[in-house]
Amino acid sequence: MTFRKLPAGVQDILPSECRILNEIRGKLSALFEANGYEPVLSAAVDYYDTYSQIKSGLPEERMFKFTDGDGKLLVLRPDATLSISRIAATKLERETARLYYFANKWDAQNAGGLKSREIIQAGVERLGESGAFSDAQTIAFAIDCARAAGIEDPIVEIGHVGYFKGILEACGAAQAEEVRACINAKDGLNAERVLREAGAGSATLDAVRALPTLFGGTEVFDRAERLTESEEARAAVAHLKEVGRILAEMGYEDNICFDLGTVRRLSYYSGVVFSGFVKELGVPVLSGGRYDTLADDFGKHIPAVGFAMGLKRVLVALERQGNLPASPAPDVAVGCEQGAERGAYALCRKLTAEGNRVTLLAEYGAEALAAAAAREKYFVTKEGVRKV
Amino acid sequence: MTFRKLPAGVQDILPSECRILNEIRGKLSALFEANGYEPVLSAAVDYYDTYSQIKSGLPEERMFKFTDGDGKLLVLRPDATLSISRIAATKLERETARLYYFANKWDAQNAGGLKSREIIQAGVERLGESGAFSDAQTIAFAIDCARAAGIEDPIVEIGHVGYFKGILEACGAAQAEEVRACINAKDGLNAERVLREAGAGSATLDAVRALPTLFGGTEVFDRAERLTESEEARAAVAHLKEVGRILAEMGYEDNICFDLGTVRRLSYYSGVVFSGFVKELGVPVLSGGRYDTLADDFGKHIPAVGFAMGLKRVLVALERQGNLPASPAPDVAVGCEQGAERGAYALCRKLTAEGNRVTLLAEYGAEALAAAAAREKYFVTKEGVRKV
Repeated sequence: MTFRKLPAGVQDILPSECRILNEIRGKLSALFEANGYEPVLSAAVDYYDTYSQIKSGLPEERMFKFTDGDGKLLVLRPDATLSISRIAATKLERETARLYYFANKWDAQNAGGLKSREIIQAGVERLGESGAFSDAQTIAFAIDCARAAGIEDPIVEIGHVGYFKGILEACGAAQAEEVRACINAKDGLNAERVLREAGAGSATLDAVRALPTLFGGTEVFDRAERLTESEEARAAVAHLKEVGRILAEMGYEDNICFDLGTVRRLSYYSGVVFSGFVKELGVPVLSGGRYDTLADDFGKHIPAVGFAMGLKRVLVALERQGNLPASPAPDVAVGCEQGAERGAYALCRKLTAEGNRVTLLAEYGAEALAAAAAREKYFVTKEGVRKV
Repeated sequence: MTFRKLPAGVQDILPSECRILNEIRGKLSALFEANGYEPVLSAAVDYYDTYSQIKSGLPEERMFKFTDGDGKLLVLRPDATLSISRIAATKLERETARLYYFANKWDAQNAGGLKSREIIQAGVERLGESGAFSDAQTIAFAIDCARAAGIEDPIVEIGHVGYFKGILEACGAAQAEEVRACINAKDGLNAERVLREAGAGSATLDAVRALPTLFGGTEVFDRAERLTESEEARAAVAHLKEVGRILAEMGYEDNICFDLGTVRRLSYYSGVVFSGFVKELGVPVLSGGRYDTLADDFGKHIPAVGFAMGLKRVLVALERQGNLPASPAPDVAVGCEQGAERGAYALCRKLTAEGNRVTLLAEYGAEALAAAAAREKYFVTKEGVRKV
């Protein structure tokens, strides 16, 4: 029968994993609050138009779409940042806000496993702020969050969309987009073909060929600058230099590197972009960036930067790093005879108040208690309590 | 433009409300864990067949349905209990489990407001246990949960599906279902018409007429027994008496009443059913019951009982009772000059470690700090820290 199985690419989270996810959520929540972030939760069901009419870069075939009773097309939230940008532009009255969320996003085309179709995320958005210091703080906070979740040695790779845009500024927007898609697909041959057809010079071709090598420490900046005369590309490098300086100042130099070859699928990014990795996992555990013009389509200009962590990926990273927290064993089981419920219940209250995890059995009698798994056991009769 | 608005009946949760929801979640989570419940999270996207092929009682027009890439029909989780029953029957190896969840359910036809189409729930399911003691513990725990969420004077109305089934046992199942729908719609005239057409005797008619009056304290039991000769109905009353006795033993007599006239929409309930109210709100803040045969269709017999709270309704109840917790004010703001990021960041770490909510400004300079709202402010230069 179909209905005992789940659709491909979605999962149930069973107790042992769910407890760890909840623990991670608790730790992140405390960190968010301590750093002045406020919680927000956007509707999970939204209009398709919200995600299709603006320059979001979300391909429509990746969205779960359905029809409302009135014939309008709906989607399952395909992107948290977009919905929070909508909230910021249309519902928050403040000029600046630091928000956090725990929310799913859905991707109809993901295959499952580490690329789930139902993605449990924790994220932050810093709305109404600009500049390298804001970017650096966001990246530092992403590293703090990864550590708070229990991840060892997170590495954040930092790029800037302005570098790629700059070196392709001579091409048209459509060609640049085509080249981006080729690079994302690691299809260098076609990227070069498109560039030649667009009339790109040899300098541009050289720069595009060099993109995958522009990865490493601060030493990549000089090479990246020499590859291009573009003011936009050079400004991007200068900005990354400053972000790197501040992150080093704040003590994060061992957790960052630079990747000028980054070209992102989501076209709403406008500046710094970054992804967080651990060496045990081939996919990022977090990613984010600056999106200064995203809210414009919602009627308000709000420079902003943020990131999201994929909590199921964090779980796998913790597992591979050998850092999964142990499940707590049941502490105390309490059983009773019929008519002694008052005493049994009073004992449970006392034991939970003392910080124990207490299970009051639903079945009467000493036999049920004997079968229960617990560190400590009490049996309650009308006469009193006895430890067994 | 459509896309700035949300579809009818769904909501964004803005920071002031979202913080309170998170606080409620935190308190409930602690209570669940202290009482030996384990967390679980079912997939939000599931097969339509899972919810339609079994005797779930969920009307298909209330589900958000959509088509997967392979043509199969999907739904947004329309019911948490059903999905957890599926997990218990197909994925848990234990005979008993006490599970809790924080999860949305969706109802395509709800109108919005207190009847949201996107329902944020906290709930528990006690799988593999039977009997009045189990029922009573579940109801007591529902009251504990309402109180932990901050609700004053919750009242749980307790009924039993066996009473209604018993008094209608002479009618066919289809007619009984029709009568149930009439009673739910408070349409007594049509209920009587259906009963007469089904050939029901005057005793049955009297009992059905009396249903709305079978509401109150333990005094309703005698009347309820006198109204029927049905063994099933009388067994239901006897069971409720025992549940009431245990709840009184445990100290909950002031928070419960009985409602033998309860007839539930969800047909998977098989025994005790209950709903929790506060006098300030016309809709229940929690509801639940026993569903001993639900898992049979998933291939395993698992007697079970559980309940769910609607967290947005809890929020409204707290508001109407004047018990909304206050939002914490920002504690400390830290600003710095360019080049003093290291000192500013070290100060923030110290202040958050001391338990403060700290905002590090993204903008350099003393002016930005002057404009920030906070109880305490510090400005950091290369020379050192100064309180302002």
